[in-house]
Amino acid sequence: MTKQEILSQIETLSDRDIKALARTLNALSNMKENKYPFLGNFLGVVEEDSENETEFVCSMPIGREVLNPYRIVYGGITATLADMAMGWMLERRISGKDKFVTLDMNVNYHKAGTGKRLIATARVVNQAQDIWQMACDVRNDRDELVVTTTGTFLQLRRGKE
Amino acid sequence: MTKQEILSQIETLSDRDIKALARTLNALSNMKENKYPFLGNFLGVVEEDSENETEFVCSMPIGREVLNPYRIVYGGITATLADMAMGWMLERRISGKDKFVTLDMNVNYHKAGTGKRLIATARVVNQAQDIWQMACDVRNDRDELVVTTTGTFLQLRRGKE
Amino acid sequence: MTKQEILSQIETLSDRDIKALARTLNALSNMKENKYPFLGNFLGVVEEDSENETEFVCSMPIGREVLNPYRIVYGGITATLADMAMGWMLERRISGKDKFVTLDMNVNYHKAGTGKRLIATARVVNQAQDIWQMACDVRNDRDELVVTTTGTFLQLRRGKE
Amino acid sequence: MTKQEILSQIETLSDRDIKALARTLNALSNMKENKYPFLGNFLGVVEEDSENETEFVCSMPIGREVLNPYRIVYGGITATLADMAMGWMLERRISGKDKFVTLDMNVNYHKAGTGKRLIATARVVNQAQDIWQMACDVRNDRDELVVTTTGTFLQLRRGKE
Repeated sequence: MTKQEILSQIETLSDRDIKALARTLNALSNMKENKYPFLGNFLGVVEEDSENETEFVCSMPIGREVLNPYRIVYGGITATLADMAMGWMLERRISGKDKFVTLDMNVNYHKAGTGKRLIATARVVNQAQDIWQMACDVRNDRDELVVTTTGTFLQLRRGKE
Repeated sequence: MTKQEILSQIETLSDRDIKALARTLNALSNMKENKYPFLGNFLGVVEEDSENETEFVCSMPIGREVLNPYRIVYGGITATLADMAMGWMLERRISGKDKFVTLDMNVNYHKAGTGKRLIATARVVNQAQDIWQMACDVRNDRDELVVTTTGTFLQLRRGKE
Repeated sequence: MTKQEILSQIETLSDRDIKALARTLNALSNMKENKYPFLGNFLGVVEEDSENETEFVCSMPIGREVLNPYRIVYGGITATLADMAMGWMLERRISGKDKFVTLDMNVNYHKAGTGKRLIATARVVNQAQDIWQMACDVRNDRDELVVTTTGTFLQLRRGKE
Repeated sequence: MTKQEILSQIETLSDRDIKALARTLNALSNMKENKYPFLGNFLGVVEEDSENETEFVCSMPIGREVLNPYRIVYGGITATLADMAMGWMLERRISGKDKFVTLDMNVNYHKAGTGKRLIATARVVNQAQDIWQMACDVRNDRDELVVTTTGTFLQLRRGKE
């Protein structure tokens, strides 16, 4: 698709479609500033203040872009938010040069993802050897529990790769 | 963001950014035709032929849009693909007016999501009462196992809602 | 094995073996009183007082009978304790004639099961339709987290069977 | 309980109780020969021939000792059988001095555990770094799927402890 084709297609878009496009453009612009990948920026995932040092909190607005045919947030996207929250927390905890991989993740769905936004609260349940066992709860803006998840991560120490 | 603001921002975009924008525009255009939600169209998830009647297969191209900071597909997105495959298969199996909800999902990550595309193969492991227990394997284009997942779904019968 | 064979074999047993035998005999005797199945009685699972109405607590002594080759409690037995705790709590919550089945269970192992006993604390995370989503933490007698588990249960209503 | 007390209690036992006692005595006697822990011997878990080198198969008879109040095998015991099968297979695969720990286990229950015995078939799904990702299916003697499980194990290399 050339720039010209894009411009002419935009002329035909509804206001709703323009919103999705704006979301993409904002993501592209934000990722230049915050150096985070496209997806988190597209989903609008942002860190939130947390009163509790043992937790990491981030949130995501609920837009049409993440709704499934029943008009609730895709289960996979809620899982993605939880995965991002746990990964983000982990990045802060491990030393700068180390990496980590997800070994597995378990998601229990309690309530449909609806409302204005989803808030994910991650915590470390246990850390031993190079294994991080984490958990993350996702709530909606009425503070109802949407999903509870657990994740197991393997820290890859720099010297051992 | 107005149409005018969008148009002027587009002028400044790199070729790479244009690709992401084209993906969004294609998704908006495709969803008018296939009536599927934005996300599946944005991710480019399409059904694939399957030789086996007991399976449902779909695939997703790997674009920059779904890569995490390590340049591999976000674990949550691979999980989303598997969730979509199981849900899509389920839609075909349950009667037209019924709905379903995901109760839980378990994902084991085996290999980094890299390459050109991911292929998800879903199957029904067991069905009893209103419970569907499904599984989905995701492989890359070199036929390597990327994740194995299981999902439990509850069928909501129309008359009972 | 006849009673006579049993009696003569007992003569050859060490003190340690006698303990296992006593455990079996106690279980057989207790199950006549409490009407619980053999296994829970053999494992010595007993209900504990709980200050919190939203929780159900039970415990199990750690005997040689449940140790694996590394001399820690078998992971499956710790899972069994958690499953029993959730099931026991559920029995108290559903109406007398209904039954339930376990749909799935996820267990994260944090610490080896050692010490004098394991204490399982179960709670209901969410209840909707006929689905009970529960969780159970198991701690040792030094209050260290041994496993965290989640379980999904389907209530079978009497009239519908 | 002294030997004398045991002997006098045995006199009062029913034929059914004698069976449970015989199971205990057999377990105590077998563990002296095969050096396996009590529990596997008590449950009667034995290795089975497998045609397939990539699998490990073992089985367990269904006795009254493992039945829950609904007269089906305790979910936790079926999980224990699967855990033992995966662990047994792993022991064969890792070098003699290394140990392993279970990180997590996921169990999906498909059918009630009934019939004469349960047969567990374990396999390695993926192995990388010190992580073993395994799966185990348990079937009844009518070849019906009772549970499917996955387990993640961490190999502890001898030199690193």
